[in-house]
Amino acid sequence: MTRRMIILTEGNSNPHTAKTACCLIRYKREEVVAVLDSTQSGTTEQALGVGADVPFVSSLEQAPDANTLLIGIAPPGGKIPESWRSVILDAIGRGMDVISGLHDFLGDDPEFSAAASRQGVTIRDVRRNDEKTIARRTGLREECLRIHTVGHDCSIGKMVTSVELTRALNARGHDTKFIATGQTGILIEGDGIPLDCVKADFVSGAAERMVLEHQHHEILMIEGQGSLVHPSYSGVTLSLLHGCHPHGLILCYEIGRHKVTGIDHLAIPPLADILKLNESLASISFPCSVIGISVNSRRATPAEADAERDRLRDEFGLPVADVFRDGPGELVDAILQLQQQRLKD
Amino acid sequence: MTRRMIILTEGNSNPHTAKTACCLIRYKREEVVAVLDSTQSGTTEQALGVGADVPFVSSLEQAPDANTLLIGIAPPGGKIPESWRSVILDAIGRGMDVISGLHDFLGDDPEFSAAASRQGVTIRDVRRNDEKTIARRTGLREECLRIHTVGHDCSIGKMVTSVELTRALNARGHDTKFIATGQTGILIEGDGIPLDCVKADFVSGAAERMVLEHQHHEILMIEGQGSLVHPSYSGVTLSLLHGCHPHGLILCYEIGRHKVTGIDHLAIPPLADILKLNESLASISFPCSVIGISVNSRRATPAEADAERDRLRDEFGLPVADVFRDGPGELVDAILQLQQQRLKD
Repeated sequence: MTRRMIILTEGNSNPHTAKTACCLIRYKREEVVAVLDSTQSGTTEQALGVGADVPFVSSLEQAPDANTLLIGIAPPGGKIPESWRSVILDAIGRGMDVISGLHDFLGDDPEFSAAASRQGVTIRDVRRNDEKTIARRTGLREECLRIHTVGHDCSIGKMVTSVELTRALNARGHDTKFIATGQTGILIEGDGIPLDCVKADFVSGAAERMVLEHQHHEILMIEGQGSLVHPSYSGVTLSLLHGCHPHGLILCYEIGRHKVTGIDHLAIPPLADILKLNESLASISFPCSVIGISVNSRRATPAEADAERDRLRDEFGLPVADVFRDGPGELVDAILQLQQQRLKD
Repeated sequence: MTRRMIILTEGNSNPHTAKTACCLIRYKREEVVAVLDSTQSGTTEQALGVGADVPFVSSLEQAPDANTLLIGIAPPGGKIPESWRSVILDAIGRGMDVISGLHDFLGDDPEFSAAASRQGVTIRDVRRNDEKTIARRTGLREECLRIHTVGHDCSIGKMVTSVELTRALNARGHDTKFIATGQTGILIEGDGIPLDCVKADFVSGAAERMVLEHQHHEILMIEGQGSLVHPSYSGVTLSLLHGCHPHGLILCYEIGRHKVTGIDHLAIPPLADILKLNESLASISFPCSVIGISVNSRRATPAEADAERDRLRDEFGLPVADVFRDGPGELVDAILQLQQQRLKD
């Protein structure tokens, strides 16, 4: 059955809070029927920055051909707003499946699960997992190139960079697999492990398991999580960095982001320090460097974006590109150059 | 009801695998009746290094006054050996409670839980938790001094150092609380959160929550976990380091430990690099330094231990002590000196 989704973002239709909605519209357009937010009208493009042909609707009735309700936001703390319960129950009553990436599993809610079982529909909690693998750092196929996106904060474009580079590498004929490590990436790719919801001892092992399972590909593009300098989530970041054994890093950076997301009294350290920290922690078994910088300039003017790109090139002597504004070519070249260099060594 | 424990270590009675057993004998001697290992005889002192008056027994019958069975080892992968099932069922049948620190929860095993409910006994899975707090870095009482033990590998004495320093500080009249972050520490202290089994997004928040709850004390001694350079568990270490907001670090180090535990092909980096990495990652909001080195010299001769202590003092210019061989005095002085210095600033 083809998935035809209505995405629930009620009252939260902005690119930051509704990251999941934006990325599904961008990368799974063919599965998105509409976005449910009664406070909005027209198409999603203005509010979300994507979806010139995706309508906002104010009720499930207005999208009768949808067969799936996707929770399209990640509220702080992961709890579902009380007012959404009736929407979810309505969807289940209409025979729709429900997909959620919340930390609070909808399938564990007695009312939702009883309703779903009555209607014979599925509640899929994307973050649910039972990972129990310890990382062992053995069995790696060194001909498979492992590239990992890291960043200076949360929600700055690590996933988008990974997907865009995967597509560009495949378009150039290099068999590349996107390794999804978060809920949105998993919904796009169709597989992956939600690392932020794995028990802490097994996060590194889960990352390693994905690498081992997919290393028959030529290149793996491994989605980063959080940041080493975001103290709430840095452990997820480091477990992933150590577990995925990267050969090269793409450092993601958003222009105008100066404070740690959610901790306004904490400044993000200089990018040079973050780069050094990532390289130092990544190089635990073999040297691993940042090979390019992916700039997110969504909040910058074209002139500001160009100036910042030039400044970063000067400071770091690395390829720098906004994958949308400049295209991914320069970063793809950097990846292929690392591949060539490793084949020679 | 007073807990009178028999500790199960069958076939694994050595200080490394039976760490939980050793520490319970050391710090909860009054609750330990015997250790169950049919491959051993006499007292536990020779095999475990502690317990001159704790007998090995080969069956539950030999310790009829025990009312609790404690699983005293942490097998790799956290799975219970098949042969132990009958011992656990026998204990339940005798009306004993069962305590386990395994990742695989005994209480979720249908046979164990049915038997426990028939007998009216309790199965306590120490690692079970439902932590869902995001770290926010607010509300800290700066008059409460936060000291955190870190290390160059797993199982080198971070917990023992924390407990010994807590006791020594209290003995000198400084109201100090041991913050337990692992299963063994929790069994000793009676409270705490098993961070390695918390969902990755919430580890830092769980550490912060413990600090906030106990900051009415003068000093908190926060037990470290793993190591920043142990790639299987480094994420737990970093989440804790960021979540507990330390003012000062005690770096724990075992003489003769050169390879990463469980990853024999990976060398532990030089201690100076590890010290720098910890300080750099800890100093995210305010400067935090290593103020002393706790040396575990259990496998060294007295002459080797003295030589290594002198070498470390020369290299780092810091107080260095084995809390058992040299006593904790020098490290306690370093902590109180930091406290004085902060009061002046």
